[in-house]
Amino acid sequence: MRNTFEFFSTKNVVFGNGSVNKLGTILQRFEARNILLITDQGIKAAGLLDRIAGILKEEGYNVTIFDQAIPEPPIETAVKCYEFAKAEQKTDVVIGLGGGSSIDLAKIVALLMEYGGHPRDYFGGENLVPGPIAPLIAIPTTAGTGSEVTSVAVLTDTENNLKVGISDNYLRPAVALLDPELTVKLPPFVTACSGIDALAHAIEAFTAKDFKYIEAEGELLFQGANPISDALAVKAIELIYHNLPLAVQQGSNLEARGQVLMGSLLAGMAFSNAGTAAAHALAYPIGARSKAPHGLVTGLLLPYVMEYNVHTSPEKMEAIARSFHRNTDGMTKAEAGREASKAVLELLHKIGLPAKLSEINIDVNDLPEIAEKALPIERLIRNNPRVPTKESLLELLRNSY
Amino acid sequence: MRNTFEFFSTKNVVFGNGSVNKLGTILQRFEARNILLITDQGIKAAGLLDRIAGILKEEGYNVTIFDQAIPEPPIETAVKCYEFAKAEQKTDVVIGLGGGSSIDLAKIVALLMEYGGHPRDYFGGENLVPGPIAPLIAIPTTAGTGSEVTSVAVLTDTENNLKVGISDNYLRPAVALLDPELTVKLPPFVTACSGIDALAHAIEAFTAKDFKYIEAEGELLFQGANPISDALAVKAIELIYHNLPLAVQQGSNLEARGQVLMGSLLAGMAFSNAGTAAAHALAYPIGARSKAPHGLVTGLLLPYVMEYNVHTSPEKMEAIARSFHRNTDGMTKAEAGREASKAVLELLHKIGLPAKLSEINIDVNDLPEIAEKALPIERLIRNNPRVPTKESLLELLRNSY
Repeated sequence: MRNTFEFFSTKNVVFGNGSVNKLGTILQRFEARNILLITDQGIKAAGLLDRIAGILKEEGYNVTIFDQAIPEPPIETAVKCYEFAKAEQKTDVVIGLGGGSSIDLAKIVALLMEYGGHPRDYFGGENLVPGPIAPLIAIPTTAGTGSEVTSVAVLTDTENNLKVGISDNYLRPAVALLDPELTVKLPPFVTACSGIDALAHAIEAFTAKDFKYIEAEGELLFQGANPISDALAVKAIELIYHNLPLAVQQGSNLEARGQVLMGSLLAGMAFSNAGTAAAHALAYPIGARSKAPHGLVTGLLLPYVMEYNVHTSPEKMEAIARSFHRNTDGMTKAEAGREASKAVLELLHKIGLPAKLSEINIDVNDLPEIAEKALPIERLIRNNPRVPTKESLLELLRNSY
Repeated sequence: MRNTFEFFSTKNVVFGNGSVNKLGTILQRFEARNILLITDQGIKAAGLLDRIAGILKEEGYNVTIFDQAIPEPPIETAVKCYEFAKAEQKTDVVIGLGGGSSIDLAKIVALLMEYGGHPRDYFGGENLVPGPIAPLIAIPTTAGTGSEVTSVAVLTDTENNLKVGISDNYLRPAVALLDPELTVKLPPFVTACSGIDALAHAIEAFTAKDFKYIEAEGELLFQGANPISDALAVKAIELIYHNLPLAVQQGSNLEARGQVLMGSLLAGMAFSNAGTAAAHALAYPIGARSKAPHGLVTGLLLPYVMEYNVHTSPEKMEAIARSFHRNTDGMTKAEAGREASKAVLELLHKIGLPAKLSEINIDVNDLPEIAEKALPIERLIRNNPRVPTKESLLELLRNSY
């Protein structure tokens, strides 16, 4: 039994409509003059790059712009960005503006800025990041990954067709700046996929095995549920569930957008400490086969994983049903849990996402191999409240087919 | 209307029975060799100083001990501690071990370590702390002040018989290490006073005016309620309310102690961003008159302040009643709120604390002056959900007499 957990978080969160206008005030705290702004072409096309760069220039900062971030950024993009920035000027603060990919890229570049080397130097092992990275301000334009507060950055090893990650508490941005106004142009499908991923983060963190009973030694990044992650996750669950349909169907609804963005932030704070579980473990082999967006896959799996865990997290499943405002009068805890799972299934329909693996290009004959590939993803599988076996995961997959 | 809030927190919380044994691991992250350990005679007498110093020395750290902290530490104590430590050795990390007073003292010393000068240089104004203070690990031995995660340090100006504070986000400790085992010897009365103070922090932060409607310009330390502080506060309320009686009546109950300590931590994270309100504002002039412990006074006032706010925070008052597990079936929100206030009154009785101002040496003729003195404490009064007037505060005081 483990007796201690650690909770890490971003020291400073800034949230609100128009909060990008506080960038100058925030940068003053770092005594910064030279800013490296990392973003992508989509953000540029949407006019957001001009807006942010304009604010910075107006306040007299020297801004170097790298606008070549791409989704699932290859290792080479990180190297290119780092080399480019190094050649341009000294960087005091890095800003990552965009979806999870741009922020992940900014994390790696902020790491290289401080310690040099090549991204490969930091892959795989633990404690390879020697200390704090360069000051990083993360400005998300999607509501889902929570990357603005998490300890993880993922790149793509295009040579070996692999996703590779650096996970370290030092990778958490110094500041997470969330301005709902930046998310209003996000298309419904992207809003749906990223929002349901955030709900999967929150529910998997909330129902994760209690930190005391995680079977692993030493320091862990994903430590299982604790009272702090619980407090954040349950609020995230409530905010995302009740606001995501409106954010998807009515993209200009700034209030709904703001609530989902806040939910995604809280989910990021929760899962980056507690960890995610079976839905995220299964999403790896499924995502590799179907090429569907990550959030679509975790969201699709979520109700079936909740059903799978209904007897090992009865109190928490019931709490989820309550936070969904489902009527659970006279129900057993397990029945209430099933009600929560049913509500997530209905949510998938409301936001126009598939609810069956058969709809996303997965062959039924691949299910055993998917179960086999998910099972060794220890850092996620060990968090699941019901200890997964190959057989039970296969049954879960069959239920979701 | 304000459109943005900021949430600040301690980057690293370590929590659990025996978690003091992780001190070495934590210190490695600071590449520290020389430790200044600040504590008081009570902690020494309880054997806790020997325990912590023993852990540090065993792991090869050079430890300088200042064990002359006292409750409500005078300015001179901070100067003395700083001069002593400077003369001894270079300090890499400061550890504050004890109640809120020892931790507050450690905050000031960590500030002087980094920027020199005299405590008076930093009183009163805003933004007087130039940047991050020396790395500080706060180890609370009481469950109440939340000082281990807050931005405030209070000293006593003995010359002028005044409490003076430094409030700055840079004062937040780098690490909050909470080990419930350190709290088991706390006497019932101290447990009760500090625990009810934590409940007052949580309830006042939760019901504070929404950050959008706080009537003040510029950057504020206490910004009103926001979704992050709400999530933390509501969990704190639940944990403290349900566990404090057992922690008071059965001091060796490590489980109850741990839950109250966690609640106090969450309350600290919440109120140091959202702020407290009328109960804390009124506690200043009352405390100056009655000399009763701070927590006893805020706790005594709490149910009457809840009653006072019942119509301006109906949803939140109802949520408190629910988290108390009070039956609110068929009640209006205001009735549910009154039920919550009644529950806090009952809690005072359960933990043996007075529930009337007449019991704590306050003259009924002083009530008007108390109301008058509380009203100008803007940073707290403006957070109260019902805008206080002299007349209504006087009525509140009469109800609580």
